[in-house]
Amino acid sequence: MSGEPARIGLLGHGTVGAAFACLVAERAEAIAAAAGRHPEICGVLRRGEGDFDAILDASEIVVELIGGTDPAREYVLRALAAGRHVVTANKQLIAQHGDELFDAARSAGVQLRFEAAVAGAVPVIRVIQESLAPIEIEKVFGIVNGTTNFILSEMASTGATYADALRRAQELGYAEADPAEDVEGADAAAKMAILARLAFHTPVRLADVRYEGITEIQPDDIAYAKELGLSLKLLGVAERRDGGVSVRVFPCFLHRGHPLAPIDGPFNAVMVEAPAITEITMSGPGAGGSETAAAVLGDVVSILAGKAPVHAVREELPVVHDVSSSFYLHLEVADRPGVLAEIAGVLGRNQVSVQSVVQRGLGEDARLVMVMHECPEAWFYKALEEIAELEFLRAPPRAIRVIEEEFV
Amino acid sequence: MSGEPARIGLLGHGTVGAAFACLVAERAEAIAAAAGRHPEICGVLRRGEGDFDAILDASEIVVELIGGTDPAREYVLRALAAGRHVVTANKQLIAQHGDELFDAARSAGVQLRFEAAVAGAVPVIRVIQESLAPIEIEKVFGIVNGTTNFILSEMASTGATYADALRRAQELGYAEADPAEDVEGADAAAKMAILARLAFHTPVRLADVRYEGITEIQPDDIAYAKELGLSLKLLGVAERRDGGVSVRVFPCFLHRGHPLAPIDGPFNAVMVEAPAITEITMSGPGAGGSETAAAVLGDVVSILAGKAPVHAVREELPVVHDVSSSFYLHLEVADRPGVLAEIAGVLGRNQVSVQSVVQRGLGEDARLVMVMHECPEAWFYKALEEIAELEFLRAPPRAIRVIEEEFV
Repeated sequence: MSGEPARIGLLGHGTVGAAFACLVAERAEAIAAAAGRHPEICGVLRRGEGDFDAILDASEIVVELIGGTDPAREYVLRALAAGRHVVTANKQLIAQHGDELFDAARSAGVQLRFEAAVAGAVPVIRVIQESLAPIEIEKVFGIVNGTTNFILSEMASTGATYADALRRAQELGYAEADPAEDVEGADAAAKMAILARLAFHTPVRLADVRYEGITEIQPDDIAYAKELGLSLKLLGVAERRDGGVSVRVFPCFLHRGHPLAPIDGPFNAVMVEAPAITEITMSGPGAGGSETAAAVLGDVVSILAGKAPVHAVREELPVVHDVSSSFYLHLEVADRPGVLAEIAGVLGRNQVSVQSVVQRGLGEDARLVMVMHECPEAWFYKALEEIAELEFLRAPPRAIRVIEEEFV
Repeated sequence: MSGEPARIGLLGHGTVGAAFACLVAERAEAIAAAAGRHPEICGVLRRGEGDFDAILDASEIVVELIGGTDPAREYVLRALAAGRHVVTANKQLIAQHGDELFDAARSAGVQLRFEAAVAGAVPVIRVIQESLAPIEIEKVFGIVNGTTNFILSEMASTGATYADALRRAQELGYAEADPAEDVEGADAAAKMAILARLAFHTPVRLADVRYEGITEIQPDDIAYAKELGLSLKLLGVAERRDGGVSVRVFPCFLHRGHPLAPIDGPFNAVMVEAPAITEITMSGPGAGGSETAAAVLGDVVSILAGKAPVHAVREELPVVHDVSSSFYLHLEVADRPGVLAEIAGVLGRNQVSVQSVVQRGLGEDARLVMVMHECPEAWFYKALEEIAELEFLRAPPRAIRVIEEEFV
């Protein structure tokens, strides 16, 4: 073992930064055994305290845990340009400025690692970039936001409204005071942009990801779906489609047998599908301070222990938005003869076929809950538009995607 | 990219060897993009065909897919001594001769990789050795034998006997003509020895692993347990215990909410627990030819792309066998007053407490199915011995461990 310690410059000392510093101290011997050198945090940049230039000078690895893109982007670019390896947990930074940062790392011949940016301690980045490097990945999908998964689990298990479940998540520290980035799907979109980029070796920008959140979900949608054996998740899906790539985030029902159906609470889970490996699933806690710090430290040790590939674009795949899905459809209608026939007629004319129907009387009104077979989304949305205009409808129709595959 | 191809010597050309050669050809461009060089299979050793020395001379990486320990051990040792990196899928080789092989690799300064030896394409080895290198792992456990998991799933879903389910597994190619190594637990034991070694940085020999198989499992055990919300798995467990390490393989019931409970069919799943990361779960198909070949190729590409740590012993942890478990107990007894009281008395005197009981009359006899709270196994086995001698017992008692933890 060399006598020189490995000098780590730490930018940011919030929850994750503090947990990281603590873990480095606690695990110094194990780090030395795995990496060949003892670690030393040679400088910490706190809010309004510490000098970036001095830290950069003193360090060989820079760990960026400030969050946000400004000034994180500038610091990371300067560190890479100065020949420092960089480890970051910053998903927005990688999702928004990935091209520029990977180029900078490649030019300088240094590493840029970011395992903690997606799914906390679940090592999806390493598995996709290293274990699965030589095979052709078809699809990466899963639950990549713990806040929304907690809220949906809470709604399902207690019957709570979205607002009440959100409040509970905030009380438990699973949601921010301003939860918009999580609940509207932007956080998951950034993570899926990163996973898609790595899986398909193609630049995927945040603007390429279509996303929806969970703020419109009603408790009775979840309750009815339960009767059909379905559970609701906010799903991110990145897949090869028609010679291009499609990346989306949307709330979605899963059948009971689906590997992601039992993932409840603030957990994350990612599945990777490829012909050579069928599929693998990885799951674990989303992003606590300790889990994120452990993922960051794993990256630091990998840098010290040896080199790993820097992401490189291999081809520019087009972004595809026109995909097929199966849908759940919830309709409040007048309870009179011919209503179901008319709705079925609209669906049929648009080539949307029905898999199951539950009808329930409510005095003068009735409630129809239907699950469709998979079809191009454009066909379903065309039918939905026509249904919304039927005069016997008592409320706007509600539609949610369903994953139709049943797993062994 | 360098003009020199990466020369791979392939030992063995069975199912996995052929799948590997095919994958190398198919994915040559992707391998070159990830590894910086094109791959070339420079020689293949088939049964009674090919010359090991010539292949060794021509190659820089040797891929061992012969299986068994003889002559695989000799070939691998010679390849390492000659300065060649080695990739193998051979779990018995690593479990039985790990110490010697790791020493040889370290002395020669080359890599020895074996991702495919455990859980097929599920990258548990890399995650434990690289992602989790700096943290303290408490426990690694899971379903590491697809054959037995298929058989147990089949028994649960169809009510089939063990013998019938085994026959079905053989028809589908999930079990060998001679299934002993799988169904008696030796295969899982070898894999758990490897995982324990890597997780705890301590030498674990096959002889240190206590294992049981599934050949004695009765269909009605599975049926009764279903009523209690339990499903049966052959579980491998490696954990730190009393300052040492305990490594075991045994059939075991899991509560419905356990992450491993839904893993059915020929699938594998491994969970890793550590304070810093709570827990992560990885699952996927066990060991098909294509999945195993993909894992081997992942290792080859990692070697070409850069270096990774060679396993090194950090400390010699003692092997612990005295552990605590919860048990399911199935008793056939005479149906008369005082029987339950007497059994409860035996359990109580041995400090074993009962969590739930199902009693069922059968004419003159009765059937008692009980689930106990966790206690030292020695206490339970003492009680079991006493119960087996009660004069009103109509058949030998049957006991199976239960994982008591309920997961969110």
